[in-house]
Amino acid sequence: MGSPSSASDLPEPAVRRRTGGRGARVRGQVLAAVGELLVEDGFDRLTVDAVAARAGVHRTSVYRRWRDVGGLLADLLDSAADDSWGPPDTGSLEEDLLALNHEVFAALADGPSLTTVLIEASFRFDDAARALGHFWDDRHARSAPVVTRAAARGEVPAATDPRAVLVTATAPLYHELLLLRTAPDPALPRRAARAAAAAARAGAFADPAPGPDPGPAPEGG
Amino acid sequence: MGSPSSASDLPEPAVRRRTGGRGARVRGQVLAAVGELLVEDGFDRLTVDAVAARAGVHRTSVYRRWRDVGGLLADLLDSAADDSWGPPDTGSLEEDLLALNHEVFAALADGPSLTTVLIEASFRFDDAARALGHFWDDRHARSAPVVTRAAARGEVPAATDPRAVLVTATAPLYHELLLLRTAPDPALPRRAARAAAAAARAGAFADPAPGPDPGPAPEGG
Repeated sequence: MGSPSSASDLPEPAVRRRTGGRGARVRGQVLAAVGELLVEDGFDRLTVDAVAARAGVHRTSVYRRWRDVGGLLADLLDSAADDSWGPPDTGSLEEDLLALNHEVFAALADGPSLTTVLIEASFRFDDAARALGHFWDDRHARSAPVVTRAAARGEVPAATDPRAVLVTATAPLYHELLLLRTAPDPALPRRAARAAAAAARAGAFADPAPGPDPGPAPEGG
Repeated sequence: MGSPSSASDLPEPAVRRRTGGRGARVRGQVLAAVGELLVEDGFDRLTVDAVAARAGVHRTSVYRRWRDVGGLLADLLDSAADDSWGPPDTGSLEEDLLALNHEVFAALADGPSLTTVLIEASFRFDDAARALGHFWDDRHARSAPVVTRAAARGEVPAATDPRAVLVTATAPLYHELLLLRTAPDPALPRRAARAAAAAARAGAFADPAPGPDPGPAPEGG
């Protein structure tokens, strides 16, 4: 299960201060300021000047390195992709997916969070959209062992596509909480994890998948 | 399968002109103008004055009836909820879900559409968010027979929750195309439909659902 320090799908405001010299320290201060201001005021009111003031860094340094708000958002997301996050390993596909879903649920269900602000920003800043895509690519890649371990245990077919299982498990949470805006249902993480695991066991994510028109037999499946 | 006139998940710009007197005619003209301007310029540049000019309606009439841009967006979505849309009935749960997914995919995959613009607007206007929620509630309610018919045919358990199946089938499309912004994969509608149908057949959406801790036996399931 996720430890308290990784209980969110995206970096929480207190971005880790990095060791590695003055540049790294400034980056840590600036990105922490971005996260704090985003959660406090939303990205509509985020300015480079406000970030510089909060970070205690000269504004020309911020403009030189990050250029604009889009650059700051993109770097905030990039900084989350090189952290030490790793997926759960409970010994069961459904329980691993449930642990992942609890992290996503926590990030989305508790009112305005950095996650929801950054997703909103991604609709308006191409830089932020690309960075959010890279962040999720990174999380999907790191989480692939949840599925490959299940295949090794014989829980799911060997040809099961990890990314498709992960997207199927988490997508209903994003859909319900961000788009449909239903009240957070504590049963949702379990229901979505169970459905994705059941579909995976049935071979729905093995390619070529079984179905009404299965096509030629898989090789090495 | 969806007919060409219902090939989108949300109303396309040419909102149906209703019969029913001058008020209904003005509403049709104004909502058609909103849809056209949204797709052409995005909602950031949508103004009541531009809508009035495009619709050929006096601006005070628009202000009086719709108040502001949020009111216009909300009414555009409400107008879609009372159309004649109905779900497919192919005789198979997976094929019905596939037909629904083809409609969602068409609305999301073809670059900026009214659907994507309205979803973006929902992040910034509470009126639009509420109206989008009502629109989806309406579509889920109308699509419930896809699942209840499958239950009647014995394809899925009788206690299967229609809404959970529908959300599971469509959510990966919204997630991939709107949030992850992956290139549209023509195999996605089938993969998501197959996964939702497989999970439903396995009882993942029957409540209380089978699983590691099934709880007491269901009554009337």
